[in-house]
Amino acid sequence: MADQRFFSRNGPISLADIAALCGARCNDDAQSDKMIHDVSPLDQADESCISFLDNPHYLAAFLKSRAGACIVHPRYAENAPNGMCLLLSETPYRSYALAAQAFYPEAYREPGVAATACIDETAEIGDDGAIAEGVVIEAGVRIGDRCSVGANTVIGRQIEIGNDVTIGASATLTHCVVGDRVHIYTGVRIGQDGFGFAPQPSGHVKVPQLGRVLIGNDIEIGANTTIDRGSGPDTVIGDGCWIDNLVQIAHNVRLGRGCIIAAQAGIAGSAELGDFVVVGGQVAIAGHLRIGDGAQLAGKTGVVKNVAAGAIVGGTPAVPIRQWHRQTHILGQLARQGSRADG
Amino acid sequence: MADQRFFSRNGPISLADIAALCGARCNDDAQSDKMIHDVSPLDQADESCISFLDNPHYLAAFLKSRAGACIVHPRYAENAPNGMCLLLSETPYRSYALAAQAFYPEAYREPGVAATACIDETAEIGDDGAIAEGVVIEAGVRIGDRCSVGANTVIGRQIEIGNDVTIGASATLTHCVVGDRVHIYTGVRIGQDGFGFAPQPSGHVKVPQLGRVLIGNDIEIGANTTIDRGSGPDTVIGDGCWIDNLVQIAHNVRLGRGCIIAAQAGIAGSAELGDFVVVGGQVAIAGHLRIGDGAQLAGKTGVVKNVAAGAIVGGTPAVPIRQWHRQTHILGQLARQGSRADG
Amino acid sequence: MADQRFFSRNGPISLADIAALCGARCNDDAQSDKMIHDVSPLDQADESCISFLDNPHYLAAFLKSRAGACIVHPRYAENAPNGMCLLLSETPYRSYALAAQAFYPEAYREPGVAATACIDETAEIGDDGAIAEGVVIEAGVRIGDRCSVGANTVIGRQIEIGNDVTIGASATLTHCVVGDRVHIYTGVRIGQDGFGFAPQPSGHVKVPQLGRVLIGNDIEIGANTTIDRGSGPDTVIGDGCWIDNLVQIAHNVRLGRGCIIAAQAGIAGSAELGDFVVVGGQVAIAGHLRIGDGAQLAGKTGVVKNVAAGAIVGGTPAVPIRQWHRQTHILGQLARQGSRADG
Repeated sequence: MADQRFFSRNGPISLADIAALCGARCNDDAQSDKMIHDVSPLDQADESCISFLDNPHYLAAFLKSRAGACIVHPRYAENAPNGMCLLLSETPYRSYALAAQAFYPEAYREPGVAATACIDETAEIGDDGAIAEGVVIEAGVRIGDRCSVGANTVIGRQIEIGNDVTIGASATLTHCVVGDRVHIYTGVRIGQDGFGFAPQPSGHVKVPQLGRVLIGNDIEIGANTTIDRGSGPDTVIGDGCWIDNLVQIAHNVRLGRGCIIAAQAGIAGSAELGDFVVVGGQVAIAGHLRIGDGAQLAGKTGVVKNVAAGAIVGGTPAVPIRQWHRQTHILGQLARQGSRADG
Repeated sequence: MADQRFFSRNGPISLADIAALCGARCNDDAQSDKMIHDVSPLDQADESCISFLDNPHYLAAFLKSRAGACIVHPRYAENAPNGMCLLLSETPYRSYALAAQAFYPEAYREPGVAATACIDETAEIGDDGAIAEGVVIEAGVRIGDRCSVGANTVIGRQIEIGNDVTIGASATLTHCVVGDRVHIYTGVRIGQDGFGFAPQPSGHVKVPQLGRVLIGNDIEIGANTTIDRGSGPDTVIGDGCWIDNLVQIAHNVRLGRGCIIAAQAGIAGSAELGDFVVVGGQVAIAGHLRIGDGAQLAGKTGVVKNVAAGAIVGGTPAVPIRQWHRQTHILGQLARQGSRADG
Repeated sequence: MADQRFFSRNGPISLADIAALCGARCNDDAQSDKMIHDVSPLDQADESCISFLDNPHYLAAFLKSRAGACIVHPRYAENAPNGMCLLLSETPYRSYALAAQAFYPEAYREPGVAATACIDETAEIGDDGAIAEGVVIEAGVRIGDRCSVGANTVIGRQIEIGNDVTIGASATLTHCVVGDRVHIYTGVRIGQDGFGFAPQPSGHVKVPQLGRVLIGNDIEIGANTTIDRGSGPDTVIGDGCWIDNLVQIAHNVRLGRGCIIAAQAGIAGSAELGDFVVVGGQVAIAGHLRIGDGAQLAGKTGVVKNVAAGAIVGGTPAVPIRQWHRQTHILGQLARQGSRADG
C-alpha cells in the first residue's frame, strides 16, 4: 500500500468498474462485483489489491502473488495462481496505469497565491491557480486555468502557459510558450541561451540566441533537464513527448509527437526527431541530424548520421542494432582467440 | 523576426555600418547605403533582413533564400541568388555574431535590489547592480559593477565577483572567486565539496575539501553545470572558456584559456586541460590526465591516457581519430563477413 | 594554506596527536612533539604543514616536497626527502582525511530560522537547526536535531529527516524519508515522479508513482543529482553510499551499503546494486539488472546484463575488464594492419 503520509487513495472500486475504466475484461463474471481497495506490486499485494504483469521477467512473482486480482495479457492467463481474478488486456501496463490513476488521482493543490510569491502586476493567472512560496512571475506572463507552480520557481517575462500545467519547485523558464497539460519537474531549465558562439583564438564571440522554446501539449519534462532556446529558429517539443531527468536539448532541436527521451540523453543543436522516436538513456545525437519517425536508439548510442524512419540502432557510431550485436559478438570472439594464442 | 515579446531590436542599420562592425566587406558598393532591419535564418529572411551561411549543409537554403543580404565566405559568393547583397567575411559566423549583437544587444536589467532579496549588511555591491527577488547574498560578499543576479540565486559568504557578471536564476555559488564578464546560467552549482573520501569498508571517510573555484574572465557556464571546489589545490577555469549545460567539472581540474566544453561532458578530478581544448558532448576525461593545447576530443570519447597538444581523438578508450574511424570501419566489415559466413 | 576567507582552521596539533587521531605511527619518536599548523598538498606544503602521498603518480612531488611531515604508506618511506617526518599508515588517504578533519572541522552554521523561511505550523524541527533564507518546509515535515537546510530549498509535506543532516541550497525533496548524517548537496532533486508511463500511439499514459525514496544513514548525494521515487516499491539508498554530481537514479533502484557512484552515472529503473559496488563516471546500468556485492564498473561502461559479485567490468556492452582490454587491443591491431594493407 502506498504510504498514506504521501498519497491519498480513492476507492474501493469494483472489478467491473476497474475493467471498464482500463479497457480490460474480467475472466470471471461471477467476481465482477468484488471490491478492490488498492493497487500493489505482485510481491506485496494481498487479497484486497489488484496488481499487474507486464514484463515476463516477473513471471515467478506472478506465480507466487497473493493479489486478489491481476491485469495480464491473455497469453499469461494460464500461468495465474489458483483463485486469482484476472483482468485481461492487450495492453496490461496501460490498463494498470488507468486503474492506478483511479485509485490515486493526481495530488490536489489548494488554489491560491502564497504570501511570499512575487507576481508582477501585469501578469495574468487563470482560475484555480496554485502559486507556491517564493515563486517569481515577471511582467507580462500569462498563465491559464488550473495551473500549479512549485516553490521558488521563476517564470520570466512575457511567457505564455496554457491550462492544467504543473511546474515543480525551483524550475526556471524564460523565452518560451507552453501548451496545455504539461508537467515540468523540479529544477528544469527552459529557454536559456543556446551554446552559440563563433570560436576565435582572440576570444569566442557570442551569437545572440533569438529564438524561443515552443512546448506543445501533454508533455512531461524530467527533473534538472535543460532545454535551450533556439538561435533564430525555435526549439520545438512536440505534443505528447516524454522527457526524463538530466536530458540536454540544445538550440533549434525539433522533437516530433510522442517522442520518448530517457535520462541523460543529449540532443545537439538543430537535430530533428520525427514522431514517436525512442531515445535510450545517455544517447548522444550529433547536431543537424534527422532521426526518422519511430526510430529507436538503444541506450548509450552515439548517433553521427541520419537515422531512417523505423530503424533500430545501437553502438557508437550507431549502426543497425543487429549489426551492433554482431560486432560486439565477433569482437568478443577475436579477443578470446587472441587470449588463447597468447596462452 | 525574433519574437518581440522576448527580444528588443535596434536598427535599422546600413549595410556599410554592418560591414564595418563585423569585419566584412560589401560586394557591391552601390548598395552599401541599403538599410537592414533584422537578422534572420536563411529560410525565413526577407528583403529587409541579413542572414549568413557558415555550414555548407545549408547551401540549398542559401540558394533559395530571399534575404536582402547575406554574410558568406568568399568561396560561396558565386552560389548566391541573383540580387542578394553579400558581406564577404573570412569568418562569417563571427561576423554574423557581431551583426546580431548590434541588432539585439544583451537584455537590459533595470538596476536595483528587489524587495525580497536578502543581502547581508556586510556584503558590498557595485554600481548599477540588478539583484532579483529571493536572491540571498551572504556575509562578506563583494560584487563589482553592472552585475545582474537572477531570482532565488544564492551567493555564499566571502565570494568575490568582478564587473559585468550575469548570474541566472536559481544558481548557487560558494567558495569561489569570479572574474569579469562571466555568464553563469540558471541552476549552475559552483564551489560545493568535491567527491573526496577515503573508501573504507567500515564507512568511507570524508576528506575536507579545502580549495576554491577560481573563475577567470569572459567565461560562459551553462545551465545546471556543476563545478566542485578543489580539495587543497583550486579548481581553475581559464579566461575565455565556454562551458555548456550539465557539464561536470570535478575538484582540482584546471582548464586553460578558451576551452570549449560541450554538454554533459565530465572531467574527473585533477585533470588538466591546456588552452583551446575542444571537448565534445558526453566526453569523459579520467582523473589526473593532461590534455595538451588545442587537442580535440570527439563527442562521447572516453579519455584514459594523456592526449598530446593538437591531437584529435575519438572512441573509448580514446585513440587518434583516424584510427578510430579505421577501427569502426574494420569492425563493420568483420561483422558483415561473419554474417555472410553464418548465412 | 586554505583560503582563510572560506575556511576556519584549528590547531596547531602535535605530530603525536595527529598520529593518534588518524591511526598512523610516527617514524621518529624524537619529533613527535613537533607542532603542525596545517595540511597542504605536497607541492605547496612548507615546514609547518603535513601532507600525504597516496597515488604513486605524485612520487616526484613527494621527493621535492618541503612539507614538515607527510602521511605515507610504509612502502614509500624510503623515498622520503631527508629530514621529512613520516606518519606511516596502511591507509594513508584515510589517515590524511582524519587529520584534515581535525584542522578543518565542518563549517558551523549558526542555529536559527531565517526571517524569510516559510515553515508550516505543523512542521517540527529539532534542536539547533539552521534554516536559511527562502527555505520552504511544508505541512507535517519532521526534522531531527542539528540539521542545516540551505537557502531556497523546498522540503515537501510529510517528509521525515533524521539528525545531523545537511541539505544544500536550492534542493527539492518530496515523498522521502532521510536517515542520520546525510549530506544532500545543492540542486539535488529527490522524490519526484519516476519515468513511468504506458507508451501508446494515442498518447502515453502516466503510471502513478506510488513509492517513496528511502535514504539511509551516512550518505552523500552530489549536486544536481536526481533520485526518482519508486513506482510502487520504494527507491532505496543504502547506508554509507557516496553519490557524486549529476547522477540519475531511477524509480525502484536499490543501492546496498557503501556504494560509490561517480558523476553522471545513470541507473535505470528497478536495478539493484549490492553492497560496496563501485560505479564509474558516465556508467549506464540498464533496468531490472542485478549488480553483485563489490562489483566494479569502469567509467563509461554500459551494463546490459547482470554483473556477478566481485566482477570488474568495462566497455559497452560490459565484459570482464581484462576481456575489454583485449578487445580494444586487438581492434587497434586490426586497424593498424588494415591501414598498412591500404598503404
